[in-house]
Amino acid sequence: MNTLLQHKSIRKFTDKPISENDLNLILQAAAQASNTGNMQWYSIIVSTDAAIKQELCERSHFNQQMVAQAPVVLTFCADLQRFTQWCNQNNAQPEYDNFLSFYTASIDAVIAAQNACVAAEKLGLGICYLGTTNYNAQQITEILELPELVVPVTTVVMGYPAENAPLTGRLPLRAVVHKERYQKFSEQEIAELYKAREEESQQFVSENSVDNLAQVFTQKRYPGKNNVLFSKALLDAIEKARFGTK
Amino acid sequence: MNTLLQHKSIRKFTDKPISENDLNLILQAAAQASNTGNMQWYSIIVSTDAAIKQELCERSHFNQQMVAQAPVVLTFCADLQRFTQWCNQNNAQPEYDNFLSFYTASIDAVIAAQNACVAAEKLGLGICYLGTTNYNAQQITEILELPELVVPVTTVVMGYPAENAPLTGRLPLRAVVHKERYQKFSEQEIAELYKAREEESQQFVSENSVDNLAQVFTQKRYPGKNNVLFSKALLDAIEKARFGTK
Repeated sequence: MNTLLQHKSIRKFTDKPISENDLNLILQAAAQASNTGNMQWYSIIVSTDAAIKQELCERSHFNQQMVAQAPVVLTFCADLQRFTQWCNQNNAQPEYDNFLSFYTASIDAVIAAQNACVAAEKLGLGICYLGTTNYNAQQITEILELPELVVPVTTVVMGYPAENAPLTGRLPLRAVVHKERYQKFSEQEIAELYKAREEESQQFVSENSVDNLAQVFTQKRYPGKNNVLFSKALLDAIEKARFGTK
Repeated sequence: MNTLLQHKSIRKFTDKPISENDLNLILQAAAQASNTGNMQWYSIIVSTDAAIKQELCERSHFNQQMVAQAPVVLTFCADLQRFTQWCNQNNAQPEYDNFLSFYTASIDAVIAAQNACVAAEKLGLGICYLGTTNYNAQQITEILELPELVVPVTTVVMGYPAENAPLTGRLPLRAVVHKERYQKFSEQEIAELYKAREEESQQFVSENSVDNLAQVFTQKRYPGKNNVLFSKALLDAIEKARFGTK
């Protein structure tokens, strides 16, 4: 339980490799996770080769150095390829080239990813998720040679921590938990819920030369034009993998 | 680690309620999970009311009795509503009504969900995910009164186990793990990878009056016409929540 409650992302790693035995445990924990109909519609690509990690780092993850530096990079993919192949070999007609199957498989991939993360942290490793996976799905597809019906969903870097990152604050629980039905917040409630986050981010705001924390997100980190651009790229990658969204 | 490696889904629960304290720990574990930019683009709807659970059971989850029977039903939602409201109040221009933001938020919701599941199992509870959430997103939206920019992603039922379910087999690890690059399997490799699953499912196959396990999936459990139908319903629900997929 402490592993869960004390989670913090780690972005700097020592050179110490992850033992074969530990990596195996992490992958087993991932594979034992809940998944739709026990069909395991996901795959995990394990990158330990320096050249591949470097290529992923540069072409797919906006040069975030932790990708090249981490001893292990795991790319969790929605995978209907293996299952479809099995169906085809068994006189069964697979029709999993659709959005529902892709989305379901994505959920399975993320459940497996989070199990891997919890297992890794339990073993003393640090982890960090990479949202850039969804921005550059097509580039990852090329580098990792993913076939049709396979799309990268999320990436996790892991290794022994070379930094002592502080525990990051979260919104008060009442901001994310609704009892029985969704209750929209009043303007005053929103202000109260985000107050502590705003106060602890003052330096971050001034470093970004904007007026407040919300503007850091809308103007610097996740601006509208990027969201639109990367939405199109992601939908194109999904379409190219033959998961129709129409 | 054993909690992860010994996971099995539980679908029958005793009447024993989950204590306020335990539920709070489970929700805290969910909220401490990794999430994009620490923006927490998700919400968790806690259903304990018998009438609401019954409605969810009948209208959204194909009458699976565990939904009505479980003391707690958690619906994890992608939520850009709260964040957008906060941006609007802070002279920041939110543009998160797009597919990338929805998909990113979905991933955050699932990471939180899996943390909740691990925490629950650590506390001696049993859990089960409900894939039906993706089939009937619009009905759930209505029952839980989800506003625009909020879409249900997955549902977890939890409670004290009233069954001793066996540990479910998984494919050999080499079926889901690829080293460095994706390697498509040969026909013989596919046959070997699925052999144990096929053997342990013989009764299941004959109960379904089909020739083999693959046909159970393609003809009975996840037939093409349902996949197409529910893909459309899911895309409609996403569109209706104002997350464009175009």
